[in-house]
Amino acid sequence: MSKWGFQIIHRSKKSRARVGRIDTPHGHIDTPNFVAVGTNGTLKALDNRTVDEIGLQLMFCNTYHLLLQPGVDTVKRAGGLHKYINRTQPIITDSGGFQVFSLAYGSVADELKSRGAKKHDGHVLKISEDGVLFRSYRDGSKVLLTPESSIQAQKALGADIIIPFDELPPYHIGSEQLKKSLERTHRWEKRSLDEHLKNRQGQAMYAVVHGGVDPELRKHSCNYLSNLPFDGYAVGGSLGKTKPEMVEMLKALYPQLPEDKPNHLLGIGDLESLEMCIPLGVDTFDSSYPTRAARHGMLLTKEGPLKISRLAHANHFGPIEHDCECSTCRQFSLAYLHHLFKANELTAYALATIHNLHFMVDLMRRVRERILLE
Amino acid sequence: MSKWGFQIIHRSKKSRARVGRIDTPHGHIDTPNFVAVGTNGTLKALDNRTVDEIGLQLMFCNTYHLLLQPGVDTVKRAGGLHKYINRTQPIITDSGGFQVFSLAYGSVADELKSRGAKKHDGHVLKISEDGVLFRSYRDGSKVLLTPESSIQAQKALGADIIIPFDELPPYHIGSEQLKKSLERTHRWEKRSLDEHLKNRQGQAMYAVVHGGVDPELRKHSCNYLSNLPFDGYAVGGSLGKTKPEMVEMLKALYPQLPEDKPNHLLGIGDLESLEMCIPLGVDTFDSSYPTRAARHGMLLTKEGPLKISRLAHANHFGPIEHDCECSTCRQFSLAYLHHLFKANELTAYALATIHNLHFMVDLMRRVRERILLE
Repeated sequence: MSKWGFQIIHRSKKSRARVGRIDTPHGHIDTPNFVAVGTNGTLKALDNRTVDEIGLQLMFCNTYHLLLQPGVDTVKRAGGLHKYINRTQPIITDSGGFQVFSLAYGSVADELKSRGAKKHDGHVLKISEDGVLFRSYRDGSKVLLTPESSIQAQKALGADIIIPFDELPPYHIGSEQLKKSLERTHRWEKRSLDEHLKNRQGQAMYAVVHGGVDPELRKHSCNYLSNLPFDGYAVGGSLGKTKPEMVEMLKALYPQLPEDKPNHLLGIGDLESLEMCIPLGVDTFDSSYPTRAARHGMLLTKEGPLKISRLAHANHFGPIEHDCECSTCRQFSLAYLHHLFKANELTAYALATIHNLHFMVDLMRRVRERILLE
Repeated sequence: MSKWGFQIIHRSKKSRARVGRIDTPHGHIDTPNFVAVGTNGTLKALDNRTVDEIGLQLMFCNTYHLLLQPGVDTVKRAGGLHKYINRTQPIITDSGGFQVFSLAYGSVADELKSRGAKKHDGHVLKISEDGVLFRSYRDGSKVLLTPESSIQAQKALGADIIIPFDELPPYHIGSEQLKKSLERTHRWEKRSLDEHLKNRQGQAMYAVVHGGVDPELRKHSCNYLSNLPFDGYAVGGSLGKTKPEMVEMLKALYPQLPEDKPNHLLGIGDLESLEMCIPLGVDTFDSSYPTRAARHGMLLTKEGPLKISRLAHANHFGPIEHDCECSTCRQFSLAYLHHLFKANELTAYALATIHNLHFMVDLMRRVRERILLE
């Protein structure tokens, strides 16, 4: 079992972009890289052996969902998440904070990563300094999520990278309240780290930088968290209403993060944001965009997204992209994919997801090669 | 390209069961065998390369569905159904009669193979000696299906085995009307055969024996169709209300079929029926039961069907069956499958379908081995 480590292989001379390598007990991650979201321990429509073959180096699983179904005890009895879901490569889990606060603040609900996939009739019963008490949308039982219980759950799951428990404030919040929320998040992250350091278990923990769209609070968050022995730094919370706002905020924020530690941008992964954020120094991104787009018939290509339902594709007997080496492009035509989508066949979702995931893996490989030449 | 042929390799001494081999331009089919249903040119939730790997020797596609989406012109331009869907092994198509008459007679609607998969708002406009005029549920256009147009469509699709256009009478029909329907079916099958013989195109055509539950009409149908140069004989129409009724009818019918030609039992494929019908001499069966059962979380095992949602499976970390060599059993646990079903993950449907299809392929191999020893 290899150990945790991070090295920067090359720094661009044109921007803050960098090529690096993260080592984990389950293999390495080349950076910059895309992290696909497998909320319930699977990428939607694909099995984990197929995902391995495509070459996805890091998979994001959601502690909140796994806590409620199948429950951490089952995963622990299976020998941990890797064994349970049969994934050999690295996994990152979050703390559950994002989802549980999305339940509390309706306005953030549509930021919820798995929206549409299930009915959330669970709700938050109490938020206190200790943590959050909520009702399971699965069976109605009460669940208490605290910094300590989140980390214990993430210990049981055994991902390679784990995330401290944080508070996700609603987007529309006064500056005084945002400051209070940030202080609580810092206290919770510190408690999470303390719990983690009791037994590292080979896992790395990334802090989550908060502070919303307030540059001073972001700076304060970077300062506070940089002085704690985290293994990496994730950027969370509200990133602004528009992409230019996000870029402006990240441009100011990134130079304040420890340069020798890997960083992760939470919940961002559309192609435009990627292009804009990699020059800022982002190492990894997670997003369900490429896999969700696939299920909606939006195929990623070097010439931009292709809407599979367009009639023009009905008689195009070549692959989605001629130079694509994914198993979908090697074996099936655009015309056949068009037909499968028109006929609402489940097969369509798997074939499209294979292509989009391969596209992201291949895109990030090309991005790294490009940076190496800068 | 090998040619059409059928040979009986062994006859059981205990029953009318037989082991045979059908040769087609796209490879051979060992009989008795199970034929999986891929209505729209795909088995639900699987791609055709996976189906090939599992070893399914014959796949059933529905002309009615393919006629409406993507349309036979598209399939023809692609170079035929095999190329379009990327299947290398044999395919059988039906005539479209079953589905179009299911639209006309509501009472048979729930026999419709793809029920639940889509909304059928199309309807039959006119039934005449010429054929059936109906409205496409896809785009509202009028479509005329006749013996000739059905065969032309099946020529364009290019399956290895094709089926003449027949009338499917409603279950509750008077004996006089059933007789009239049978005579029309015979005239339509003759017209279908004539159309087929204009250009065999390497395809084989199986007649469809009708006559409902009336033994005399079934006998008459066998006699009439046996005297025409069909390559094989399928049994269609109403087979009775119960399994014993079906077995009684088939017991009388099968000795009247030409023994040196392959036969097919339409739309039957549950395990109990299979056990009861193979000793009567059935060569092939088609049914969407195993693939549909998979999507409903019913996994086939040698000890009977296993309901994946049962709580007892949540912590069973072995495979569905220890001696199963399917890729699902080799790679994933029953506990993980249980979880994927509980979480409504699409991945669950694919993994369960792989297992059930493999089970059927393997079951039929064992059945043939057993008959060879009888």
